[in-house]
Amino acid sequence: MRLSAVGHEVVVVDNFLRRQVHHELGTDSLTPIRSLQDRLRAWKEVSGQVIEARIGDITDWSFLEPLIRDAQPEAVIHYGEQPSAPYSMIDRNHAVATQMNNVVGTLNVLFAIRDHSPTCHLIKLGTMGEYGTPNIDIEEGFLDITHNGRRDRLPYPKQPGSFYHLSKVHDSHNILFACRIWDLRCTDLNQGVVYGVETEETKIDEALVTRFDYDECFGTALNRFCVQAVIGHPLTVYGKGGQTRGFLNIRDTLQCVELTLNNPPAQGEYRVFNQFTEQFTVTELAQVVSRAGHELGLPVEISPIEDPRIEKEEHYYNAKHTALLKLGLKPHLLSDELVSSMLATIERYRDRVVRERIVPRILWRPNVRQAVAD
Amino acid sequence: MRLSAVGHEVVVVDNFLRRQVHHELGTDSLTPIRSLQDRLRAWKEVSGQVIEARIGDITDWSFLEPLIRDAQPEAVIHYGEQPSAPYSMIDRNHAVATQMNNVVGTLNVLFAIRDHSPTCHLIKLGTMGEYGTPNIDIEEGFLDITHNGRRDRLPYPKQPGSFYHLSKVHDSHNILFACRIWDLRCTDLNQGVVYGVETEETKIDEALVTRFDYDECFGTALNRFCVQAVIGHPLTVYGKGGQTRGFLNIRDTLQCVELTLNNPPAQGEYRVFNQFTEQFTVTELAQVVSRAGHELGLPVEISPIEDPRIEKEEHYYNAKHTALLKLGLKPHLLSDELVSSMLATIERYRDRVVRERIVPRILWRPNVRQAVAD
Repeated sequence: MRLSAVGHEVVVVDNFLRRQVHHELGTDSLTPIRSLQDRLRAWKEVSGQVIEARIGDITDWSFLEPLIRDAQPEAVIHYGEQPSAPYSMIDRNHAVATQMNNVVGTLNVLFAIRDHSPTCHLIKLGTMGEYGTPNIDIEEGFLDITHNGRRDRLPYPKQPGSFYHLSKVHDSHNILFACRIWDLRCTDLNQGVVYGVETEETKIDEALVTRFDYDECFGTALNRFCVQAVIGHPLTVYGKGGQTRGFLNIRDTLQCVELTLNNPPAQGEYRVFNQFTEQFTVTELAQVVSRAGHELGLPVEISPIEDPRIEKEEHYYNAKHTALLKLGLKPHLLSDELVSSMLATIERYRDRVVRERIVPRILWRPNVRQAVAD
Repeated sequence: MRLSAVGHEVVVVDNFLRRQVHHELGTDSLTPIRSLQDRLRAWKEVSGQVIEARIGDITDWSFLEPLIRDAQPEAVIHYGEQPSAPYSMIDRNHAVATQMNNVVGTLNVLFAIRDHSPTCHLIKLGTMGEYGTPNIDIEEGFLDITHNGRRDRLPYPKQPGSFYHLSKVHDSHNILFACRIWDLRCTDLNQGVVYGVETEETKIDEALVTRFDYDECFGTALNRFCVQAVIGHPLTVYGKGGQTRGFLNIRDTLQCVELTLNNPPAQGEYRVFNQFTEQFTVTELAQVVSRAGHELGLPVEISPIEDPRIEKEEHYYNAKHTALLKLGLKPHLLSDELVSSMLATIERYRDRVVRERIVPRILWRPNVRQAVAD
């Protein structure tokens, strides 16, 4: 909608994977999401702009190839992946499905661009989770290394923390290679954790609201804490709560994509932008929500639970994120006021919350593994 | 056969992928390979040992799971991957098929071990090609990095040079993760380019000969040069010939696997051994073959051709390979005598050579890409 609003000709491609997974898990967005067709109709009414839809699966070459061949896009903004770490950790089926969906979809996009629209700028949604939590500063995609007296600039070593995060690392390697051998151009947006409820466009009309997930699989830390605060559920901090990540407001994700689109890389270039604006520990986020909740008279408690993931719960974390700032990103930083406004919006939908889908049940190390300890 | 000979109980798992691809490409091993059933019968006759066979595809969970559950192996030696870089570069279908076959097969192996044989030692065939050709020394799997005054030991940054090599990098990341979160144990053998015709076991009986591929897809540099020398074909050095790689004799591959098997890592450990014994440039290999050929009276010419790959044709290369030496590896180094003996063996099969399958036709950058240059 943002790109359509500023005059771009937009085609949206969807296979409704997220809706399908919500059906599978018995969960749903807090905000009621209309059908794609209704949303496009509403967008046309309020903006006068037409966004075309193509329904299909990008892992299906017989769907994707003619799409790219006919559209000859100047840019492909590739969000078409299974995006949940816990979902990928449910079991073997979900791990394999996640990696196949994400890796094959991206390979198809690369081949389609190569064959039919080779000057197209691929803007690929990666994740800060590709880096893991190394004990050194995280750079933007590449690292200058001096070793035994020699120097090179190499892809930043990755330590992803789930089969989902691994799929993004696989993608990054595949894309870098495609740029190198075929002279494609790509920006890999290593996005942090997104929070927030709305953008300028989604708040125009009820039919245009965007997804707000709070469940175990798709909910992100701050959003989930806000929902918990509203419904009187303790804020479930996983483990020690010292897990530090990069975060950004959903409004800034749009700015980042637009800035990236308007400043394409050279042909043959693979570049990585770390797309977040601030770092927080999980405990710090819980404290912000607790403060804002108490101001609104909500009885918010913070209640650590055993971490379902295998991850460092206290660690060094310092990730660079200057590339997008240099392009002009103006961050909307986290504030108590913003959280208060999120809490107010969530309050409107509180009847939709499925309480029993918030606490994690998917374990990174299933109990069957106790066999090893014997 | 080597492991069976020294008393291990061996089950071989095969889906005949290599035979199938040879059918697809119209190529074949120089040495005539008998059916698996014939080979196992011959092995039983000469050794008295039974090797069991299970025919199926490890990407098929309904095949692999009961296999691991019933066998409860102490070790899985995982060679079950599509191993050709050029094959993976034919087109989109072959790129996707290679990555799916290799990544899903390995994921299945990891889940099957986790669920049914968690103390099993996974010995995984990787490749030196995962590293590419960085301008710094190549270490064995991990690199100690100092950056902005802080230190960490991180996975060595990878720069694979084909969709096949990429699939192995994907595997390595998946395996490292599985060892970390599930306490599995794995040795990733980053193998160099193998040369040679026979081992102690394959030469016992004609029915036990091993594969010797010389074609564009499966042939490796030294083997291919030897075949070219025998049939009077110029030695086709790709490009400048300064491409440097690690090489090892096929006899040493068996030593390496056996040493790895006999010295397993601790539970939870993921370790990487660089499995090669010597570095050569492609030109140096051609010169060795030329010398040995001339001694035998063969009119050997070296004839550079345009490199079908996108790769550095001259570069720094210094890869460590001490882990296996420390475990006791006694290398069979390359010598003119060894090449002479290879030439003599190849001479016996010269009528089987399909001459037109030697010169490369698969291009890393297909001509369609000229559109970009316009």
